[in-house]
Amino acid sequence: MALPSDATLADAGEFGLISEIVRHFPQGEHVLVGPGDDAAVLRVRTGHVVVSTDLMVEGRHFRRDWASASDVGHRAAAQNLSDINAMGGQATSLTVGLAAPADLPVAWVLEFAAGFAEECALVGASVVGGDLTRADQVVIAVTVLGAVTESPVLRSGARPGDVLALTGRQGWAAGGLAVLGRGFRSPRALVEAYRRPAPPYAAGRVGAEAGATSMIDVSDGLLAEAGHLADASGVAINVTTGAFEVPEPLVAVGAAVGADPMSFILGGGDDHALLATFPHPSAVPDGWSVIGAVAEGEGVTVDGAPYDGPTGWTHF
Amino acid sequence: MALPSDATLADAGEFGLISEIVRHFPQGEHVLVGPGDDAAVLRVRTGHVVVSTDLMVEGRHFRRDWASASDVGHRAAAQNLSDINAMGGQATSLTVGLAAPADLPVAWVLEFAAGFAEECALVGASVVGGDLTRADQVVIAVTVLGAVTESPVLRSGARPGDVLALTGRQGWAAGGLAVLGRGFRSPRALVEAYRRPAPPYAAGRVGAEAGATSMIDVSDGLLAEAGHLADASGVAINVTTGAFEVPEPLVAVGAAVGADPMSFILGGGDDHALLATFPHPSAVPDGWSVIGAVAEGEGVTVDGAPYDGPTGWTHF
Repeated sequence: MALPSDATLADAGEFGLISEIVRHFPQGEHVLVGPGDDAAVLRVRTGHVVVSTDLMVEGRHFRRDWASASDVGHRAAAQNLSDINAMGGQATSLTVGLAAPADLPVAWVLEFAAGFAEECALVGASVVGGDLTRADQVVIAVTVLGAVTESPVLRSGARPGDVLALTGRQGWAAGGLAVLGRGFRSPRALVEAYRRPAPPYAAGRVGAEAGATSMIDVSDGLLAEAGHLADASGVAINVTTGAFEVPEPLVAVGAAVGADPMSFILGGGDDHALLATFPHPSAVPDGWSVIGAVAEGEGVTVDGAPYDGPTGWTHF
Repeated sequence: MALPSDATLADAGEFGLISEIVRHFPQGEHVLVGPGDDAAVLRVRTGHVVVSTDLMVEGRHFRRDWASASDVGHRAAAQNLSDINAMGGQATSLTVGLAAPADLPVAWVLEFAAGFAEECALVGASVVGGDLTRADQVVIAVTVLGAVTESPVLRSGARPGDVLALTGRQGWAAGGLAVLGRGFRSPRALVEAYRRPAPPYAAGRVGAEAGATSMIDVSDGLLAEAGHLADASGVAINVTTGAFEVPEPLVAVGAAVGADPMSFILGGGDDHALLATFPHPSAVPDGWSVIGAVAEGEGVTVDGAPYDGPTGWTHF
């Protein structure tokens, strides 16, 4: 395909563009049939498949002026790969649907695909299929499949007496979003964390093998996700703010925007940290921090009291 | 959830609505973990999984004034189930992502979900997960997983000397779309065929067991799909118009709109008929009609000559 550098989707047409996109997607050995047929065919070794799906909408989950196409690709893959991580599974295969305006540059789509593929390569997963069609705004629909070799870790297994533990950056993306929302571009570390999350991909299986009783990834906000664990498990969860070291960039942003930096940690999502419960502090693996405890009851408290700050993302 | 009958998505909120939606989705025995966790967990018996994904965009693939929410649900499921059918597989599990304006009525979403579930029930497949978020227009993202018990039937296996065969209604949906596009509502059989396709779900496995050398479902247009088979297989395909009985409603619509009714059959998609090649006429199963032949060469001809009518759907 020889297109000018400013070509749009309307110039390229669906089929020519798909063949360009697919070049970015190497296929793993488990992929018997990759993109290009009615369906992909995957070899499954474990007898179980985990599957999750997520939508990202331009203007709501990302802005093209706040993040590069590559960043958006990384994020779209990361938030899905993280869901498999949160089950204690290993992501193997993804599909990606892209609905986009006809005037979207082809270059944006190819850069998105390259970023998406780079993120998938971090965990050895293949992009095995997709769809491309026209819409008024960019909508990205990703489905991820994975393998679980033992029992998956659900949200519902937390028990009174368990400890609550966290691994991965938390609050950085929310801090970066606050910065971008005010028209700034620094602290750069936070902006980069928002644009391109770095989920702790190895930690899900480590947590599962260490005996995590429940696990979830923090996409909508730490307290919101703790609430999901509490609801699904029928327990109460208390988060201890003293357990967190507030990173310096969050202190700086808090001072700049007049916010308690702890609000980014407690209310922020999008970093895709992992939150899990373990039966005893000694079971908590290296790299995880104990940040709270599970008790009989219901709901989530912070330092023993109800929390009245922002607790997460509302989809409508 | 007690909402007024004219409640919108903004009134309902994401989590309350999801619990209402999920009630429409019974879970099969192969579903170890259904909707509500980070990912669904499925038992896989055959060692292989087939997976396909499709997007449907309001105003492009459907109009809410031309089809009920239930119809849109049936179609969204059908076009994905059909992709598994076209591999000779058995669909087992689907995810559905819905991006929608905040003012979309809750009733539309629930009726969509019910129609989607009804179509899945026709083949015994379960809706195991999904996502719901806000967008400017309705975008539906479906991914379907299935099992293949033997080698899947690809697009690439057609050989010179094979016969081309078709099963299922073909051209009806295109006729119905032509009717709706002119502001009419009859012939009702065609309009209904457009609103709610009836793919020949049992035929994919029958075709595979009968030794189909290649197979595809007709979603973009018969000649376009024949072209995909020819390209992937490195062969030429000729379609014989005399092999078709033109159904009476298509004759009527052709006369009404001044079109050759054969153009609906050759160019129309959306019925999700199955198109396949078999090594010999005697291998073609009951319910399939021989409509052409495979030869050495490339491309698609109609009655031995190039065809200059519409040959399918352009996505951009």
